[in-house]
Amino acid sequence: MKNAYEDLGFAKLDHDRKQRTGVAEVVFCQNKPNAYLPQIFMSIYKQNGEVLGTRATQEQYEMVKEKLPQIQYDAVSRILKVEQPKERIGNIAICTGGTADISVAEEAAQTAEFLGSYVERIYDVGVAGIHRLLSQKEKLEKANCVIAIAGMEGALASVVAGLVKVPVIGVPTSVGYGASFEGLAALLSMINSCANGISVVNIDNGYGAGYIANQINQLAVK
Amino acid sequence: MKNAYEDLGFAKLDHDRKQRTGVAEVVFCQNKPNAYLPQIFMSIYKQNGEVLGTRATQEQYEMVKEKLPQIQYDAVSRILKVEQPKERIGNIAICTGGTADISVAEEAAQTAEFLGSYVERIYDVGVAGIHRLLSQKEKLEKANCVIAIAGMEGALASVVAGLVKVPVIGVPTSVGYGASFEGLAALLSMINSCANGISVVNIDNGYGAGYIANQINQLAVK
Amino acid sequence: MKNAYEDLGFAKLDHDRKQRTGVAEVVFCQNKPNAYLPQIFMSIYKQNGEVLGTRATQEQYEMVKEKLPQIQYDAVSRILKVEQPKERIGNIAICTGGTADISVAEEAAQTAEFLGSYVERIYDVGVAGIHRLLSQKEKLEKANCVIAIAGMEGALASVVAGLVKVPVIGVPTSVGYGASFEGLAALLSMINSCANGISVVNIDNGYGAGYIANQINQLAVK
Amino acid sequence: MKNAYEDLGFAKLDHDRKQRTGVAEVVFCQNKPNAYLPQIFMSIYKQNGEVLGTRATQEQYEMVKEKLPQIQYDAVSRILKVEQPKERIGNIAICTGGTADISVAEEAAQTAEFLGSYVERIYDVGVAGIHRLLSQKEKLEKANCVIAIAGMEGALASVVAGLVKVPVIGVPTSVGYGASFEGLAALLSMINSCANGISVVNIDNGYGAGYIANQINQLAVK
Amino acid sequence: MKNAYEDLGFAKLDHDRKQRTGVAEVVFCQNKPNAYLPQIFMSIYKQNGEVLGTRATQEQYEMVKEKLPQIQYDAVSRILKVEQPKERIGNIAICTGGTADISVAEEAAQTAEFLGSYVERIYDVGVAGIHRLLSQKEKLEKANCVIAIAGMEGALASVVAGLVKVPVIGVPTSVGYGASFEGLAALLSMINSCANGISVVNIDNGYGAGYIANQINQLAVK
Amino acid sequence: MKNAYEDLGFAKLDHDRKQRTGVAEVVFCQNKPNAYLPQIFMSIYKQNGEVLGTRATQEQYEMVKEKLPQIQYDAVSRILKVEQPKERIGNIAICTGGTADISVAEEAAQTAEFLGSYVERIYDVGVAGIHRLLSQKEKLEKANCVIAIAGMEGALASVVAGLVKVPVIGVPTSVGYGASFEGLAALLSMINSCANGISVVNIDNGYGAGYIANQINQLAVK
Amino acid sequence: MKNAYEDLGFAKLDHDRKQRTGVAEVVFCQNKPNAYLPQIFMSIYKQNGEVLGTRATQEQYEMVKEKLPQIQYDAVSRILKVEQPKERIGNIAICTGGTADISVAEEAAQTAEFLGSYVERIYDVGVAGIHRLLSQKEKLEKANCVIAIAGMEGALASVVAGLVKVPVIGVPTSVGYGASFEGLAALLSMINSCANGISVVNIDNGYGAGYIANQINQLAVK
Amino acid sequence: MKNAYEDLGFAKLDHDRKQRTGVAEVVFCQNKPNAYLPQIFMSIYKQNGEVLGTRATQEQYEMVKEKLPQIQYDAVSRILKVEQPKERIGNIAICTGGTADISVAEEAAQTAEFLGSYVERIYDVGVAGIHRLLSQKEKLEKANCVIAIAGMEGALASVVAGLVKVPVIGVPTSVGYGASFEGLAALLSMINSCANGISVVNIDNGYGAGYIANQINQLAVK
Repeated sequence: MKNAYEDLGFAKLDHDRKQRTGVAEVVFCQNKPNAYLPQIFMSIYKQNGEVLGTRATQEQYEMVKEKLPQIQYDAVSRILKVEQPKERIGNIAICTGGTADISVAEEAAQTAEFLGSYVERIYDVGVAGIHRLLSQKEKLEKANCVIAIAGMEGALASVVAGLVKVPVIGVPTSVGYGASFEGLAALLSMINSCANGISVVNIDNGYGAGYIANQINQLAVK
Repeated sequence: MKNAYEDLGFAKLDHDRKQRTGVAEVVFCQNKPNAYLPQIFMSIYKQNGEVLGTRATQEQYEMVKEKLPQIQYDAVSRILKVEQPKERIGNIAICTGGTADISVAEEAAQTAEFLGSYVERIYDVGVAGIHRLLSQKEKLEKANCVIAIAGMEGALASVVAGLVKVPVIGVPTSVGYGASFEGLAALLSMINSCANGISVVNIDNGYGAGYIANQINQLAVK
Repeated sequence: MKNAYEDLGFAKLDHDRKQRTGVAEVVFCQNKPNAYLPQIFMSIYKQNGEVLGTRATQEQYEMVKEKLPQIQYDAVSRILKVEQPKERIGNIAICTGGTADISVAEEAAQTAEFLGSYVERIYDVGVAGIHRLLSQKEKLEKANCVIAIAGMEGALASVVAGLVKVPVIGVPTSVGYGASFEGLAALLSMINSCANGISVVNIDNGYGAGYIANQINQLAVK
Repeated sequence: MKNAYEDLGFAKLDHDRKQRTGVAEVVFCQNKPNAYLPQIFMSIYKQNGEVLGTRATQEQYEMVKEKLPQIQYDAVSRILKVEQPKERIGNIAICTGGTADISVAEEAAQTAEFLGSYVERIYDVGVAGIHRLLSQKEKLEKANCVIAIAGMEGALASVVAGLVKVPVIGVPTSVGYGASFEGLAALLSMINSCANGISVVNIDNGYGAGYIANQINQLAVK
Repeated sequence: MKNAYEDLGFAKLDHDRKQRTGVAEVVFCQNKPNAYLPQIFMSIYKQNGEVLGTRATQEQYEMVKEKLPQIQYDAVSRILKVEQPKERIGNIAICTGGTADISVAEEAAQTAEFLGSYVERIYDVGVAGIHRLLSQKEKLEKANCVIAIAGMEGALASVVAGLVKVPVIGVPTSVGYGASFEGLAALLSMINSCANGISVVNIDNGYGAGYIANQINQLAVK
Repeated sequence: MKNAYEDLGFAKLDHDRKQRTGVAEVVFCQNKPNAYLPQIFMSIYKQNGEVLGTRATQEQYEMVKEKLPQIQYDAVSRILKVEQPKERIGNIAICTGGTADISVAEEAAQTAEFLGSYVERIYDVGVAGIHRLLSQKEKLEKANCVIAIAGMEGALASVVAGLVKVPVIGVPTSVGYGASFEGLAALLSMINSCANGISVVNIDNGYGAGYIANQINQLAVK
Repeated sequence: MKNAYEDLGFAKLDHDRKQRTGVAEVVFCQNKPNAYLPQIFMSIYKQNGEVLGTRATQEQYEMVKEKLPQIQYDAVSRILKVEQPKERIGNIAICTGGTADISVAEEAAQTAEFLGSYVERIYDVGVAGIHRLLSQKEKLEKANCVIAIAGMEGALASVVAGLVKVPVIGVPTSVGYGASFEGLAALLSMINSCANGISVVNIDNGYGAGYIANQINQLAVK
Repeated sequence: MKNAYEDLGFAKLDHDRKQRTGVAEVVFCQNKPNAYLPQIFMSIYKQNGEVLGTRATQEQYEMVKEKLPQIQYDAVSRILKVEQPKERIGNIAICTGGTADISVAEEAAQTAEFLGSYVERIYDVGVAGIHRLLSQKEKLEKANCVIAIAGMEGALASVVAGLVKVPVIGVPTSVGYGASFEGLAALLSMINSCANGISVVNIDNGYGAGYIANQINQLAVK
């Protein structure tokens, strides 16, 4: 297993990762120095024929584009990618508490789609008007995994998990103010859920939720 | 207004309080030294013909009883009182997320009843099985104020507030473990609710919620 | 109850909310994407003939104004609204500890006024000069509900609650520095008040306090 | 869906839950009052022919046993149950960092087994001697889901997730002292993992991890 | 200055301290091993003709008494001492919010008295009944320093400081529950006071407050 | 005492404060709205012939100057004032751990000087080179009060207090990074000092320390 | 490297560790189940001819003794061991702030001695009487590494590091009360030290400090 | 020892430090006022013939350069220095979890090099692809000290320490988002490591780690 990586000095690209974990290395662009980023994208692209980056800025997009003209950028999800066409199979449902959570939700959705899963979007169904969620029950029942994304008190995850048979991935978001402490309140809420079947990822970590949901969806389909 | 209190040295009993706030001084028994407690109960009883204490132990009950034989103790709510018969008017609904929250709920209920309010108990309607709460909608709609009591992620308060027209008092409880941090998770959850009409009292503060609910209920009835 | 909402894709407007809770949906403008905001305001306005938004910026005001020219913006409270003329009934008193809390106080006051309550403003009566508050006792006694707004140590809420018969809504503000931790000190202070009758909303949540105070005031008047 | 529960007054047993979520209500015994527990076990047992309780004490076991003689108690996992014989299918791997984490691991393992999953136990493979984990690679590769349980710095979850294709459920434990803050350090560590495919449950929540792992395993097998 | 201490091996008694700081070493008894405590008391007593210890238990008292029969113990303040008769000069006022704070107040009072100050006790004048404090204004105005001791929200310190010309030492206490976090709420409250002239010592640190108040009082008198 | 203030609507200037506490109201300029600030300065100046403001910006200075041309601004301490000539009496020593603490130290020093105290500045004597502090012992011994100002671990306060007979006011500063948490580490350090005679003010609160030191110094001189 | 461990089922004893890290596995006894402990001690003893355990109770000592009669227990350090005679080389100085820190200091000292280092004990030299530390300068200068152990504000580490050329290992202890938060204040203090050459281990982790100090000492001697 | 410093008024340069600790004063440039910085660099340079500054900005570089033209600036490490040529001896290995940690790593590396140590850089070997680290084992075994630098969950330090015989200095970094709380998660992780031989410095404190590693390396070589 040793040495199955490409050493760029500033980075050791883990080309063995696809073999080991089923998914090639994904680039976390936030705060990556400009000097390194295009080279990292190029190298992974050459190895895999496609490449996915998260939390990219418009400026990073333009810099990478100079070397890799087919790169695509989505400003809502901040995803930067070259993607091979592929069938999207199975079913992942992604719910948000509000409109302000959509940026995180799209990071999750587009990650899962990149990895080959079909995604159903169910946005703005927070618990202050619970009938909006209850009216989506049919869609929820078709999913192999549900992602529940909410800020403030993050109660959505508990209510969703009380309604479905499949795993719920909770994503607390930094939406809120004051004692939300930039997502900590929602994180604690989801971690302490009284409902069964919820596990949680980091605040605003749409990518992580999309990754796990795809793992579960692929297990269910295959 | 000055000097409208009785000075026992270790305590200055605020006999003006009933005049000022509508309610005579209530005794917070927790950690009150044995040497002082019976005298405090006696003095308030003499002034008002009744007396209410919270968070009392069995041992405190027995000590006070020696001086004030008509004192009554309820081990679930830990309330210690002499109560004059009175009509209970209006309507306060008290919901709990689970069975383990009942001790706090009874502190709230019996406080509100002591102060003259009618209380409707709706226990164990947590969001993991949301239909249990939804089936109580008629009861909720009759209330002038709802108290929502829950530990763990405390999501109950948000869901209730999305269903009613009246103020909801959230009471986070210390029920839970791990990252519930003895009620902090539920407290943050309720303070950050996405629903309108929720205000919050301290963790396990059933007394405080019962007091405020009675204030609101009396305003509504009169 | 199901489906009583308008689905805009990015948002599911809860038009049933007025029926259920007595108040139509209010728009929390903070961080709402520019692409969505005007449409949300228009839709609620059409449904109700008026619309209320909070935490709006000047830029958001100008964007909404293009579609809804009668919209009005107040830079102190950051409230964005179209309001139908209505009688303001009952009495809510709003106290602040200092001058820097006025922005939060105006959010509370204008929310309560929009919902139909009469508001008495009592600003800059913090406990460092307690005689300023004590001299307002007559005004306090006329209120059906008092909102106490303070940053730093937030002691105002406790002192007010010791003086009145009606519920006090405490609003901690982020005014302060150092170990105020952007309002956490005031929040903890109010949640732990030794006085009866205080419940608390989120840091800087003037809107929430105004909403609840109006609920209580309407119950008292009707 | 309404009213599909049994109302015991102190509890509303959610008999609809098995229909909705695939699993009947599980009893969280911790701090449940003695007066209520046996009745709750009996009622669920009658409905389902089996019953599972977690975090039970020896004393609770003896009390329930009086009414339900076939009840069984395991002192390591603190699980209290009546279980119908069933085939255990699929494959879940459960790793612990140390020997002190075994109590939580057994709660997870026995929950998953009760729900019908086959479990592979891989205990005491913490990262201070990483070769112990690496030598288990074959076992890890057979699993449909891995549960990684660790206290102190909780690094095990990240290392495991870097080695497998399937979802990893991280369970931080309260094992440790000082700045472990009773499991908070491990929780933060797992939530911030640099590896893909980790989602996290509450500190010491073996039950929750076993529940989710079974959900994933069943999806994979079926 | 070097070596002006007595080396007992397990302790280096700072006999130079009286020269340097005006006060001989005081023994913090909490958790001091039984094997060491009597020897430490004896040594300081021999050096100074008197000795003061804080946070002592009944058991420690009895152990020290065997070696030093004239030792005296007060169970309320937990002070253990041999004291030479001395005049008590000047004036320190000590206020508490409630009856439960008296243990801390007595530690402060008896420390200041041991060090030669006159102390005025003003107990149970918390802000929920502010007239009790206002009626003590004459006593407050005679003091060279005021100690304000309160748990829960600790608002007493701010109100006192708004009334007097002299320094106020705030002592937060661990009296309270839930989100008081064993005195943290009161500590933050006092540190963030909007009033001038407040400085703060550790939670329940009556000794420290008594020490500083005596320093100030002695400066004022001399 | 009632009504001894000037009501500007947005502010109630506490002109009674000088009578009550010995010092006229001081203006905390931070975040004060531009519309209010000049009027507040003018009003206090007219009442007292001088006025002191803290945490002022250059922009606020220029705005106030238009109305009050004799106003003076110091960019290091951020103090904005009109000061009457007065004798500076007694002796206050102000120590800092480092050069970066000087801004806070000057706020303390200039406040105490404004209030009539003589100040000795002893800057950059942090404990990493303890001989720098020890060489200042003569200056320390002349003071009636010492202010110890330090960020990072804030150890300076403890060492100073071990050397002097007079009260030490500890001022934690936000100097530092990482786990200093913007002054929290220094605050906790000073609050938990093993030395006697330290009380603490808020992070970066040079003003508060100068105020109290002046109180003590005036008591000592008079 | 694989499989170089002994699998006891509940534990995988890392017998390769001595080869890899120079030191055989040490047993952290705290909360280790009684059923497992004696077997673990026996197995390591057989492999290495000696064995070291930390945080052992008297009860654990007696249980292990039944199987391993030559085991020795020290109640102060709570160390449980069988030790081969060996030369103690080099020089490690261990300082404590107070007498209450000696338990942690002895854990460090006896660990380092077990591993072959000479230890110089310098106890009770806290910064409140700095001359006690300064008078030990000669001893400090002979050490290859210094361990500084202190609770409360933990300032000792900074002062020591300002005096020596060699690495200082800071050990915060849980000695203190109130806002020491069981050692957190001392931990933050040491992590933020303004002095060079300090690195920190967990609260009360005498063992860890002794281990590292021995590593450094051995490097220096060899 | 007294007075062995140069008094610039705003700073007391500790020229005795090289004598005492082996290393001349190093300048922490962050937030140092422009007016003071060049003079401090000049003074230390004159005393020692070289000078090292950390956390310098481009702007500070240009300002110092006017007075000290031979000054050199590295934008990655933010180190500002004049360095005398010297032999670099021994061996320090510096590992990072990712590419984003390189800025902190270079601060550590260049500090150690300035102080005379040879440094081996091993970057981007985080635990998500553990084979990258394992393949560097030979390099690790040559080091007298290893610095492990990582953000997010900081697991790298534990894994490294399980592989080597020498001390590991853990440097948590602020790389991450959400519940990493700007490095706190990594700090807690490293402080609670289950592996032996790790001590920790402040978040992002590359300088401190380089300083200590050099101390250890010099002890090992000499």
